[in-house]
Amino acid sequence: MYVRYNYNNQTHHGHLAEGIVTRLEGNMFDSVEPSDETVPMSDVTLLAPCEPSKVVCVGLNYLDHAKEMNEALPKAPLLFLKPPTTVIAHQDTIKAPEGLGRLDHEGELAIVIGKQAKNVSIEEAAEVIFGFTCANDFTARAIQLSDKQWTRGKSFDTFCPLGPGIVTEINQQDASIQLTVNGEVRQRSNINMFIFQVNEVVSYISRCMTLMPGDVILTGTPHGVGPVNSGDEMSITIDGIGTLTNTLNIE
Amino acid sequence: MYVRYNYNNQTHHGHLAEGIVTRLEGNMFDSVEPSDETVPMSDVTLLAPCEPSKVVCVGLNYLDHAKEMNEALPKAPLLFLKPPTTVIAHQDTIKAPEGLGRLDHEGELAIVIGKQAKNVSIEEAAEVIFGFTCANDFTARAIQLSDKQWTRGKSFDTFCPLGPGIVTEINQQDASIQLTVNGEVRQRSNINMFIFQVNEVVSYISRCMTLMPGDVILTGTPHGVGPVNSGDEMSITIDGIGTLTNTLNIE
Repeated sequence: MYVRYNYNNQTHHGHLAEGIVTRLEGNMFDSVEPSDETVPMSDVTLLAPCEPSKVVCVGLNYLDHAKEMNEALPKAPLLFLKPPTTVIAHQDTIKAPEGLGRLDHEGELAIVIGKQAKNVSIEEAAEVIFGFTCANDFTARAIQLSDKQWTRGKSFDTFCPLGPGIVTEINQQDASIQLTVNGEVRQRSNINMFIFQVNEVVSYISRCMTLMPGDVILTGTPHGVGPVNSGDEMSITIDGIGTLTNTLNIE
Repeated sequence: MYVRYNYNNQTHHGHLAEGIVTRLEGNMFDSVEPSDETVPMSDVTLLAPCEPSKVVCVGLNYLDHAKEMNEALPKAPLLFLKPPTTVIAHQDTIKAPEGLGRLDHEGELAIVIGKQAKNVSIEEAAEVIFGFTCANDFTARAIQLSDKQWTRGKSFDTFCPLGPGIVTEINQQDASIQLTVNGEVRQRSNINMFIFQVNEVVSYISRCMTLMPGDVILTGTPHGVGPVNSGDEMSITIDGIGTLTNTLNIE
């Protein structure tokens, strides 16, 4: 798994395997050449695995969630944006100001772009994808609904945990996705329930806006979204990636 | 007026007065110390005056436009985002792919942030503002309305012309704003018609997301929005700033 991390007050890109982080020569998007420097995982602080210039999100994209909501299946992906200032790492705290009303978890598969991409076809899309990570499209639900435009309710600082790292391959025909709150399962589905597949989503977005290396696409959340309270710990686990854990603090 | 420009294949920040650009030592947000290098305006290519990490937009914010639309006055600014890939400079071409349907001009005052800002009060907001420029919140209206979420219709590459440069002061009590299409006035109002004032908008957004130097806030458009066709030239003029001109090309 590719990671960004802090070690001795310096930020590096690295590859994590069996508890050992091997520093990369430079940026994971330019080169994945390993250096000869290794350090135990326990000695580093994981950072968000990339620094997106934009986070593009897809609305309703799971068949089970669409059925649960009694919604007609969308004809095209519904897009919205979260600003880069929402991004935090595995184990970072989601900090919500008091008074926002209901706050919801939304566990999601995140696509990380590896190459600048504009007007790519569905067939070409795989070539511009660097890999995949876990995401929490954390949402101030009351604000999302009262504003009607979804932006503000999803754009508070720290409302986009990403991580723990990036894998370059997942099984798109069969990978379970699960979100727990304090260890109790709240969302469980499989990305084979996607209405719009990974490559379709990348192609569709690239027909509107140029995607840059490190940009992130959140692919929508399965059924089971619900509220959390201050102190609750959320963990999102996706087959072949790992687990992203963050705690909410209302302050 | 502060400008970003290209000269001899290098990008600089500079100050433009009486047709002469004086290069700044470094970044306008860190320092506005002039160097001793000057060059005639005619020898440089203007770039977008800043490189925002995010473009935050306010919906309905002019009293006259709200009346025209028979809309109740909003109780708080309505926010949405345009990605950084929408930003282009004065004289750059707005390029829309064929088949988007109706395309509209929206002339707007843009606020440029100068200092990192989180949870600033209305009173503190002026301190974090670097200046002001003209913007065109160019919009694929048919897509905005059919998607309902405004993001995609406003997020195509080149859909956020900014410029020509940044002034640090405008008369917020009386500054006319005007947009012409091929020389004919289509939008004319005054920023004294704002429902939410400049400092209120900055404070409100900073309570959601951290604003960074170079970030841009579009303050909403006055009455008179309407469609344009391929080849049409749009010019937005705001008192105390200047004129931002861009031509649409549907390709």
